[in-house]
Amino acid sequence: MNYFSSDFKLGILGGGQLGKMLLFDTRKFDIQTYVLDPSDEAPSKFACNKFFQGDLMDYETVYNFGKQVDILTFEIELVNLEALTQLENEGLKIYPSPKTLKGIQNKGIQKQFYADHHIPTAPFERFENLEGLKAKIQDIKLPFVWKCTEFGYDGNGVKVIRQVSDLDSLPNVECIAETMIPFKNELAVIVCRNPSGEIKTYPVVEMEFHPEANQVEYVICPARIDEKVAEKARAIALNVSEKFNHVGLLAVEMFQTNDDDILVNEVAPRPHNSGHYSIEASYTSQFENHLRAILDLPLGNTDSKVAGIMVNLVGAEGFSGDVVYENIETIMGWNGVTPHIYGKKQTRPFRKMGHVTIVNEDMSEARRIAEDVKNTIRVISE
Amino acid sequence: MNYFSSDFKLGILGGGQLGKMLLFDTRKFDIQTYVLDPSDEAPSKFACNKFFQGDLMDYETVYNFGKQVDILTFEIELVNLEALTQLENEGLKIYPSPKTLKGIQNKGIQKQFYADHHIPTAPFERFENLEGLKAKIQDIKLPFVWKCTEFGYDGNGVKVIRQVSDLDSLPNVECIAETMIPFKNELAVIVCRNPSGEIKTYPVVEMEFHPEANQVEYVICPARIDEKVAEKARAIALNVSEKFNHVGLLAVEMFQTNDDDILVNEVAPRPHNSGHYSIEASYTSQFENHLRAILDLPLGNTDSKVAGIMVNLVGAEGFSGDVVYENIETIMGWNGVTPHIYGKKQTRPFRKMGHVTIVNEDMSEARRIAEDVKNTIRVISE
Repeated sequence: MNYFSSDFKLGILGGGQLGKMLLFDTRKFDIQTYVLDPSDEAPSKFACNKFFQGDLMDYETVYNFGKQVDILTFEIELVNLEALTQLENEGLKIYPSPKTLKGIQNKGIQKQFYADHHIPTAPFERFENLEGLKAKIQDIKLPFVWKCTEFGYDGNGVKVIRQVSDLDSLPNVECIAETMIPFKNELAVIVCRNPSGEIKTYPVVEMEFHPEANQVEYVICPARIDEKVAEKARAIALNVSEKFNHVGLLAVEMFQTNDDDILVNEVAPRPHNSGHYSIEASYTSQFENHLRAILDLPLGNTDSKVAGIMVNLVGAEGFSGDVVYENIETIMGWNGVTPHIYGKKQTRPFRKMGHVTIVNEDMSEARRIAEDVKNTIRVISE
Repeated sequence: MNYFSSDFKLGILGGGQLGKMLLFDTRKFDIQTYVLDPSDEAPSKFACNKFFQGDLMDYETVYNFGKQVDILTFEIELVNLEALTQLENEGLKIYPSPKTLKGIQNKGIQKQFYADHHIPTAPFERFENLEGLKAKIQDIKLPFVWKCTEFGYDGNGVKVIRQVSDLDSLPNVECIAETMIPFKNELAVIVCRNPSGEIKTYPVVEMEFHPEANQVEYVICPARIDEKVAEKARAIALNVSEKFNHVGLLAVEMFQTNDDDILVNEVAPRPHNSGHYSIEASYTSQFENHLRAILDLPLGNTDSKVAGIMVNLVGAEGFSGDVVYENIETIMGWNGVTPHIYGKKQTRPFRKMGHVTIVNEDMSEARRIAEDVKNTIRVISE
């Protein structure tokens, strides 16, 4: 297939920042793209060849969009699965496959998949609804982690239950109760795999948390962990991707327990926040490798040229309105600092507005600069 | 000035591949761009915020375009200088300045500038037209290099005169006659400078020529030359930029003579083919630094993370029509190989269609892969 400066069309469901960063590579290769997103101000509105405004959960909208492209991918999991399944049945190539997506969209099914395939994960029980959980509460050891199985995002839909009364505020939806296992590190490995079966992993990254706020502050590549633990994490991630028969990128989030066991937490079948560092630090960015994978091109080198650290830019508390990136010019004066501004005009507290990558030959120097970046730039409003 | 996700508008005259690559960085920073280009199929048509089709040499078109933006830059020198001068007089920030551009557009004035500022360059004489040159031909030592002073591009407008009859085929235009000085290397240094006067140079790159065809085959960074020669080349390039009071990128092309003298050949006041390697190899690409410079932001680190080699992709002889990049999938399977496809639908012999960057920790390995790339990919038609 001739993708380059040809009539070939890649369809992308979702026009957020992940899609926007994917478009850097479609432009680099001059591959035509059609993008569907509900927002008229979507970050991917520019740099695609054709933008369609529409509801990603609407069957007709997704189906009609899919009929206009040659290969379809997505940058967000919340898309109409029935439309994708119908399009795939009619012969459209969709990567990742709707079958894989179906096994991931629902966290109960996803956890069951790990159990069925002997992939290490924290013990859990599934419940059809909160009532079912409450009925069995005497059998579950406190504290435990409650997770709703669908539509959770960025910490929504997850709650630590320390006493029975904590259940009172929860919605009556399908859920799981997961054993709480102490861990010393939260890690992630991005796997890419093409339809021909070529498969590669990126190095293990480490999420460094704020000691008090329990919020990820830095994504650090490579993780500052023992080489043997890193090898184990990459092997498990490879196994997860192969078991899912996954095509494209799969971000595998994991816990490193106090005993150096690796437990799979959850996966995302797309470019992922934990791989943003790769734009500056890796031989091939996660976005380029997603593109290579879904087009069944050879995968690029996933090694790093230099150490990379990523800091998310989220809206500061107390500010809503037209965004201003306070002190951005200051941090741009520092060695190896690259801000990525997603293009959302309006900030609000905790909204993901961009990220900053810090690269350096020396990891400890990168970490020092990253802390300065974190303490200097602020996402506020006019 | 708030450039990021704001109402600020950067205007770019010219929508070719240089503009296209600049747009990667305006998108990364979410800086609004307006682009003017005569072609409806310009590579920069996508990824800018607003595209205008129009003649870059037409006064009214350029003037009206300039009135709509906050800062104006260009990716091609052949633009209407009177319109730029008028816009600058009316207060518009234009970088590089039309005054600088004026000193560069005409090669006779450019050479005179070097002579006036004691910048080393090959001896030359200026002539108003070919008749003037012919009248003095008995005073000029053969062989020499004839150059027309305006509108030359990529080897057009340059000819080695070995005997008087070689003059017969030349146009009767303003020209220079330049002493032919044997050199062992053709080098280039890209300088970036912002209006505040912050200035940085990229490492010296080397153009490696095909031993028979006398055509640049590889741009190699860093140049495989003595460190002292490299320092001299960078110092001279800095001096040229400062003397021009230049803002933005200035690519300074130079000769390394057999005696290790450095002679300035010519300059280009914009991102340059000799800096394309920087997208993959440098901490900050030439395009990002052009943007930082013209917006008076701090300049980024110009050092390299790894060795970089660039191979141009030009249309193969004997092929015209809808382009096909033969064996592109093969070269994409090799370590550190990134093709850039500019997005021109039609190939013709020697048309610049793209480039390939090869990066590697090890320069000799990069050079080996670059040769394989050169011998494998072909730009042909369907």
